[in-house]
Amino acid sequence: MLETIRWLPGEECLELLDQTRLPAEISYIKCSDYRQVAAAIKCLAVRGAPAIGAAAAYGLVLAAGKCRANAEEEYLAQVEAAARELAATRPTAVNLSWALTRLLQRASDAGTGDPAVLRDLLLEEAHAIFREDASGNRKIGEYGQGFIPQKGSVLTHCNAGALATAGYGTALGVIRAARNAGKDVSVYADETRPLLQGARLTTLELLQENIPVTLITDNMAGFLMAKKMVDLVIVGADRIASNGDVANKIGTYGLAVLAKAHNIPFYVAAPFSTVDLSLHSGDEIPIEERDHTEVTHHGGRLLAPAGVKVWNPAFDVTPHHLVTAIITDRGIVRPPFGENLKKTTRQGLQDC
Amino acid sequence: MLETIRWLPGEECLELLDQTRLPAEISYIKCSDYRQVAAAIKCLAVRGAPAIGAAAAYGLVLAAGKCRANAEEEYLAQVEAAARELAATRPTAVNLSWALTRLLQRASDAGTGDPAVLRDLLLEEAHAIFREDASGNRKIGEYGQGFIPQKGSVLTHCNAGALATAGYGTALGVIRAARNAGKDVSVYADETRPLLQGARLTTLELLQENIPVTLITDNMAGFLMAKKMVDLVIVGADRIASNGDVANKIGTYGLAVLAKAHNIPFYVAAPFSTVDLSLHSGDEIPIEERDHTEVTHHGGRLLAPAGVKVWNPAFDVTPHHLVTAIITDRGIVRPPFGENLKKTTRQGLQDC
Repeated sequence: MLETIRWLPGEECLELLDQTRLPAEISYIKCSDYRQVAAAIKCLAVRGAPAIGAAAAYGLVLAAGKCRANAEEEYLAQVEAAARELAATRPTAVNLSWALTRLLQRASDAGTGDPAVLRDLLLEEAHAIFREDASGNRKIGEYGQGFIPQKGSVLTHCNAGALATAGYGTALGVIRAARNAGKDVSVYADETRPLLQGARLTTLELLQENIPVTLITDNMAGFLMAKKMVDLVIVGADRIASNGDVANKIGTYGLAVLAKAHNIPFYVAAPFSTVDLSLHSGDEIPIEERDHTEVTHHGGRLLAPAGVKVWNPAFDVTPHHLVTAIITDRGIVRPPFGENLKKTTRQGLQDC
Repeated sequence: MLETIRWLPGEECLELLDQTRLPAEISYIKCSDYRQVAAAIKCLAVRGAPAIGAAAAYGLVLAAGKCRANAEEEYLAQVEAAARELAATRPTAVNLSWALTRLLQRASDAGTGDPAVLRDLLLEEAHAIFREDASGNRKIGEYGQGFIPQKGSVLTHCNAGALATAGYGTALGVIRAARNAGKDVSVYADETRPLLQGARLTTLELLQENIPVTLITDNMAGFLMAKKMVDLVIVGADRIASNGDVANKIGTYGLAVLAKAHNIPFYVAAPFSTVDLSLHSGDEIPIEERDHTEVTHHGGRLLAPAGVKVWNPAFDVTPHHLVTAIITDRGIVRPPFGENLKKTTRQGLQDC
């Protein structure tokens, strides 16, 4: 399995797999400055809500290592400024601000003005976020694999795999766990326009592990369901509101409507860090709109007439009533989500 | 407006706009042999149900012009063999076999064995098909434009425009007619993977006529509807069964499900030659599956890992209960389609 994010201890350096070049080329971007991490998040070299959370955390460590200040307050102000810059790279996934807030809290709790000590604490916290995400995904896999029949066909959208996380993956983690449990699981992967994360990344991960995968264009999902070729849908998430509304890669909402129309269960797999209890509903989730060239160009080639107007939202919101269950690292959350997400927050692991 | 198909009278030659090169390049393929026409249909240089019907008709004229036989029977057998070859190029659109059958009928009705006379009759019939399609589209436009509000936003899929027909278009004909009627109509165009007919062709047609158009990827249609950015959907058709089930470009079915879920009317615009009363339902419509490289490659570039399995149906079937009305050159057909399509066949123009 390809490593998405790796911290090089001796070098004060973060290496990020450049996912924009996959599957053609495996190369890493070396980041010794937090601004390089911010740029890598913005251009989607690193992507996926949990992965950008962990990458941003390490980015803040790089920032902290370079801050120079006379007083503790001044130092923390510089770290906070870097955190704001990292947080502003992408607005939709809450894991980004969640991870940065967690590091800043650790720093402010430390009660020391020593930059070297603070930087080490931040690194410890970034490592913890990374480790917890990887182990959380294994738990998501274990909890979720029960939803996959002994011989089952799963449709997934975008890439919610090892490449989108610290490892193993959320939606693909569930599929991996089903396979490890001896199930005969096959996957249909939506190519996921405009940036083809499904075609480029999901198929790559599954091919590497010999899990049968068939690539389709996004607009084939409806016909696939009508022909009864798929038993369930599993996707990841970029932010989940307290009522269970789910922001995820554009196209997820359409899939959820189609799944409902065909009586196919629709599961969302995400770590609990993706849940944003501060938001009442998905209407409050900011939806990033990206550059029109993502739609009009591929590999530098113009696909459409020059100057055509484009609408390019990177995410959409799936209302909770279309979601069968949310599979988290703390357990499976079922409707009513408003109540059960809060219960899970308080009590941890359960199936509710 | 670009000419899709043109017969060069003095040269015994058919010119077909090479739509695979649009929008980058405007070039025509000169066909002096029916096999060149068959190849152009197969590779989608000419595409769209009505356009391939007309192109195949002219293709048969080219074949007839070259047949050499001693007896009428032998001559007709050669023409029929060419017709079978042309009909086999693409299985889903019924207009192809409809046009060829019409020419063969004309030949067998003629009661002459004179090749020159027969070839002229066939050319006359091909011209008639071409002319009727172009004028039929104007009628479709007139009948259909009443469905577009004074200020309206239409979502369309693939290209059902002048480029898909002998001119003016079916779905885009309705939009053109609304504009000509002084309506403030704007269009969202699905890019339509894998071959991007929406991104390449529909946007081009609309930009040329200054009809406001916004390009989206296919998976954005659901979110577009959820945000109430679209008033109605209009698509073309490749074959309509007697119960009103509609085969059209892959992705149409998903759009129809989404439209229903959002209470948005879903219209199909097609000449009556697209109706196949011999089929009881859409289940009987053969669905073409095309080469996997259409999905995995673009402009010679590999988009996905080499060797990945692909499912690539070129069409899907939308069941009649998702269709609000079918706009034909003989009038508007409403549910119950089974009854009303038959009534329209018998009585011609009406709104039923």
